[in-house]
Amino acid sequence: MTVQGKVYLIGAGPGAADLITVRGARLLAQADVVLYDALVTPEMLALCPQAQLISVGKRSGQRSTAQTLINQQLVESAQRHRTVVRLKGGDPMLFGRADEELRALEAEGIEVEVVPGVTTALAAAAATKQPLTRRGVARSVAFFTSSTAPDEPQHPALPATDTLVQYMGGREAIATATRLLAEGRRPDLPVVVIENCSRADQRIARLTLSDLAGGLEAAHGPVLVMIGEALRQRLHQPT
Amino acid sequence: MTVQGKVYLIGAGPGAADLITVRGARLLAQADVVLYDALVTPEMLALCPQAQLISVGKRSGQRSTAQTLINQQLVESAQRHRTVVRLKGGDPMLFGRADEELRALEAEGIEVEVVPGVTTALAAAAATKQPLTRRGVARSVAFFTSSTAPDEPQHPALPATDTLVQYMGGREAIATATRLLAEGRRPDLPVVVIENCSRADQRIARLTLSDLAGGLEAAHGPVLVMIGEALRQRLHQPT
Repeated sequence: MTVQGKVYLIGAGPGAADLITVRGARLLAQADVVLYDALVTPEMLALCPQAQLISVGKRSGQRSTAQTLINQQLVESAQRHRTVVRLKGGDPMLFGRADEELRALEAEGIEVEVVPGVTTALAAAAATKQPLTRRGVARSVAFFTSSTAPDEPQHPALPATDTLVQYMGGREAIATATRLLAEGRRPDLPVVVIENCSRADQRIARLTLSDLAGGLEAAHGPVLVMIGEALRQRLHQPT
Repeated sequence: MTVQGKVYLIGAGPGAADLITVRGARLLAQADVVLYDALVTPEMLALCPQAQLISVGKRSGQRSTAQTLINQQLVESAQRHRTVVRLKGGDPMLFGRADEELRALEAEGIEVEVVPGVTTALAAAAATKQPLTRRGVARSVAFFTSSTAPDEPQHPALPATDTLVQYMGGREAIATATRLLAEGRRPDLPVVVIENCSRADQRIARLTLSDLAGGLEAAHGPVLVMIGEALRQRLHQPT
């Protein structure tokens, strides 16, 4: 028999199990099945011991067929189970491929609810105690990614905001720094690089725009790169 | 006797009591004193019935002396109590004046921890089921505000990102729309306006950039304005 379930697209937040929302945690504990990303941590999955777990991990840059398969698994899960959770690292609506999953589910008439999450940029700002906006200094922030897909063009220009946050930054942020310098941004502009944000193995590096243009150590986990005057360390800020 | 407490800057999220993080809710339940914003809802304060509540509500556009007073109240609270929570609507590090509070506390050697929250833009994306990024369509998002402070200049240019989100938008978003049209953005670009996001009296309006340039109904609560091709309604999207 086919039951028609409901699908919850839930933002897991940056990684720490207690940085999911109260609503997200409650729904996880009620889920029949949980389809989760590569970015979702084992601590987070401990919140749904009752659920059937399906790993749909994929890394950026992989072919879109992977996404088609995830869409299909979501639809099939909703046809078999009552409460289906699609758990995504960060927030589902920001670099989460939610559009494609929503379309696939809506085309089958399946009910969907979205539960927002703490996006990694804000968890990184919290972890480094570095606000992304600052009165009189920074009143606009851009979140962006570089394309790694062969079918997508690179952005013509970088966002001209006061603060820039590059998701899935890593080595691609080196090119960003070079372009920002060419656009006339100051070489001593503060840069904060955070790897494995909010997890036990979190690493924070503070550098300048010209340092970043010169290169970046290889990372072993997801990396976020934050650039802007707002990220300058404060006088009495503990390190 | 003076005790030296610890201050937690906590993001309450958009308003619904279960859209705070699990960590934020736990710390609220342990707080001796909670200093809260005008944007924090009564449901949220029900999470800390044991705490002394101090309203430090101020609306944007008020003088900065108000912020000086909040800083002073924070320092004094930390000198008298062990666990002090500074609860802010949305996320503390995005348009939250966190820089000023961190400086004031650090100058007194008071320990501070920041707990991130769901920023309203992402809750609005979830509530409207409208992702802010979309493969092949939108890969950059800017969050910005217009200045209402007399001592701050207006931004020279609007962020040239695929998606734009204006915080504390309301009537100021009308000027944004006019400027975007002048910059050559399409008049039929989708716009979503959300008032009192995630609360019982949430209101959503869908319009176009040229509609927005023509005016916006007066709002009674906090308003967020989202603009961009990613916000176009999907074929089978329920309204």
